[in-house]
Amino acid sequence: MTQKNVLVAQSGGPTVAINASLAGVIAATCESNNYNLCYGALNGVTGILDSRYLNLTELIGNDSANIEKLKTTPAMYLGSCRHKLPKYEDDSEVYEKIFDQFDKLDIGAFFYIGGNDSMDTVLKLSDYAKKINSNIKIIGVPKTIDNDLCVTDHTPGFGSAAKYIAASILEISHDTYIYKVKSVTIVEIMGRDAGWLTASSALARNEYSEAPHLIYLPEVAFDTEQFIEDVREKLKTTDNVIVAVSEGIRDKDGEYISAGESATDKFGHKQLSGAGKALEFLVKEKINVKVRSVEVNVLQRCASHLASKTDLDESFEQGKKAVSFAEEGVTASMVILKRISNKPYTVDYDYAVIKNIANEAKSIPREWINSKGNDIKQELYDYLFPLIQGEVNVAYSNGLPTYMNVSHLHKRSEN
Amino acid sequence: MTQKNVLVAQSGGPTVAINASLAGVIAATCESNNYNLCYGALNGVTGILDSRYLNLTELIGNDSANIEKLKTTPAMYLGSCRHKLPKYEDDSEVYEKIFDQFDKLDIGAFFYIGGNDSMDTVLKLSDYAKKINSNIKIIGVPKTIDNDLCVTDHTPGFGSAAKYIAASILEISHDTYIYKVKSVTIVEIMGRDAGWLTASSALARNEYSEAPHLIYLPEVAFDTEQFIEDVREKLKTTDNVIVAVSEGIRDKDGEYISAGESATDKFGHKQLSGAGKALEFLVKEKINVKVRSVEVNVLQRCASHLASKTDLDESFEQGKKAVSFAEEGVTASMVILKRISNKPYTVDYDYAVIKNIANEAKSIPREWINSKGNDIKQELYDYLFPLIQGEVNVAYSNGLPTYMNVSHLHKRSEN
Repeated sequence: MTQKNVLVAQSGGPTVAINASLAGVIAATCESNNYNLCYGALNGVTGILDSRYLNLTELIGNDSANIEKLKTTPAMYLGSCRHKLPKYEDDSEVYEKIFDQFDKLDIGAFFYIGGNDSMDTVLKLSDYAKKINSNIKIIGVPKTIDNDLCVTDHTPGFGSAAKYIAASILEISHDTYIYKVKSVTIVEIMGRDAGWLTASSALARNEYSEAPHLIYLPEVAFDTEQFIEDVREKLKTTDNVIVAVSEGIRDKDGEYISAGESATDKFGHKQLSGAGKALEFLVKEKINVKVRSVEVNVLQRCASHLASKTDLDESFEQGKKAVSFAEEGVTASMVILKRISNKPYTVDYDYAVIKNIANEAKSIPREWINSKGNDIKQELYDYLFPLIQGEVNVAYSNGLPTYMNVSHLHKRSEN
Repeated sequence: MTQKNVLVAQSGGPTVAINASLAGVIAATCESNNYNLCYGALNGVTGILDSRYLNLTELIGNDSANIEKLKTTPAMYLGSCRHKLPKYEDDSEVYEKIFDQFDKLDIGAFFYIGGNDSMDTVLKLSDYAKKINSNIKIIGVPKTIDNDLCVTDHTPGFGSAAKYIAASILEISHDTYIYKVKSVTIVEIMGRDAGWLTASSALARNEYSEAPHLIYLPEVAFDTEQFIEDVREKLKTTDNVIVAVSEGIRDKDGEYISAGESATDKFGHKQLSGAGKALEFLVKEKINVKVRSVEVNVLQRCASHLASKTDLDESFEQGKKAVSFAEEGVTASMVILKRISNKPYTVDYDYAVIKNIANEAKSIPREWINSKGNDIKQELYDYLFPLIQGEVNVAYSNGLPTYMNVSHLHKRSEN
């Protein structure tokens, strides 16, 4: 019996670790006695629909230098998409097309590396495969800096983003402590619905710095009056108050604090201000101190030069495990991590049926946040701490990190 | 004859390299046969006026672990200030107080590490020393991420900021290339009056990425119509256009493009939008593509985890040279760098009289910018390239960079 091939694709927003999982899939396929070639579809499922593929066995193979470089390259080597599949009951044509492609490429297993929306795709393809009695194994490999996927202990990409946030808060605190004037610095961090990443700012605290002095998460209704009270209280004991705030904070009615109102710039456009900017202006009005807001930009999801070794190693392993689970006959599932212990930090790799994961989101348990809703508790700190440990030796040349050549992604599209 | 002591202080905005120069001053003083103790004044000249000092010989000494850790700690270990001295002809009291403190501490040389405003202080103190026939040597040690100090080839702190900008543009380009949709990403970079840091974004270009595709500097009048033309032109040949823009771009009448107008947020405050935000909205209006702006935040001046080794080594050396120049009798001067060659990159250390440096600013020569004013020329690239070379081994513990304990900076002030 000839060996089947595998197909892998990536989807959703970038992380630092999503190529480590891809590297794991490629390495495991190359080592496999059950599978032959590893193909990659460009731009997620849209690449399957357009027949745009790379032969990853040929391009990357199991060459350790290639694998290492791919592991530390940010964002998606295969490109991404934001493409929601219709229900097959409503429109089966797209499914027929995808499974037709699977047949043409002689695919035995399809791996989709992504977040919540991507797991919806895994669920739908799994359901269709079952309906048509296809034997193709379909497995999701998680990733998201938001850490909001259910069932798994934490998601690939989160640890590196958390490390970036903690290091940034530490460096911003050094930047802030230098002037002998009272000041408030508000740092806005990604995470629309879950506060995991904002909470990881607490890892910046050390023997000489309590920053961030206040932490606000989307899990707790935000009260602007209480916030001003909190800042005033902190200013009594420290000159430079640093506040970590999630972009997704909402008031008790569920309204985003970030929503600006009839702001117009010189070109006559409406502007929306982020949560950080909104709180900056609030402090400016209510408290007479120097105030500044910092929006941590997209680097929190793509700064591979500051990746967590724990994160990249686990992400790589989850890619490998996806292949071995498929070999064992697993399908309609996602690879998951189970934490065995914090000290020493140990995890087990397993899988869980996709229908319990797709379209569900995991928030921070309320009991891991303090009662005032302006800081995290030790339990959450202990959960976060192991995930940022270890540094990755990114190779440098000409003074810059060396990443994989991604010229295949940005050839000009017809437009 | 008993040996005199030295006094050192830091002033202005943070850089990644300003503590490397401090480390150089401390190390050279410890090794000196002419000087005894090295004192540090907290928060620049204001610490002299308030008698707030650290004994750096005792705290840091010439211990290599201490020196190495200080070299790689961001922002000012001694704290900073923004304090402009009056002319001594108008008000000599503050000068009498400072020189009285010099006498009390038995100071033979004073080193002030800072940018343009700090060199104004060096000039004024030098003039006063001359007037009162003081024998105290007064020497400035440059630093600024803006690279806008005259006479010297480039300034400590700039190379590390340039490396951070280039690495960020490279990582942002990976983040951007993943979607198969036309897009424009505008990255706003620090530098109000000089475009050196924005220009260094060009170092991100490599075999697979032309980003940034366009570069706009404060040295050239910004024309919004030409800008839209430029972006349209680039979109013909590439899907994802990345634009590097200085925060200080101005139109032909000298008006900042960053100036927002009657923008009001939900709390009723006026808002100013930065150049990046302004261009984002302009592209959104004029060109029908996905557009995003990224403001590179304060990390461009304090991300020690991504420092340039060339920069830190030169900064350290300039601190050491300040001490040896003082020993040779030099005063009323600033340490400068002279570039001998680019290939191989070599520099000489020298000094120049402060009155030719203070209150002057160095812009990019127009002939180093292309005629359309939307990119840099090879000469500027060649100037920038050596400055970001080499990586620094920052020590990590608990998953984060380990920096000097700066608790002496943020004890609560009376207020």
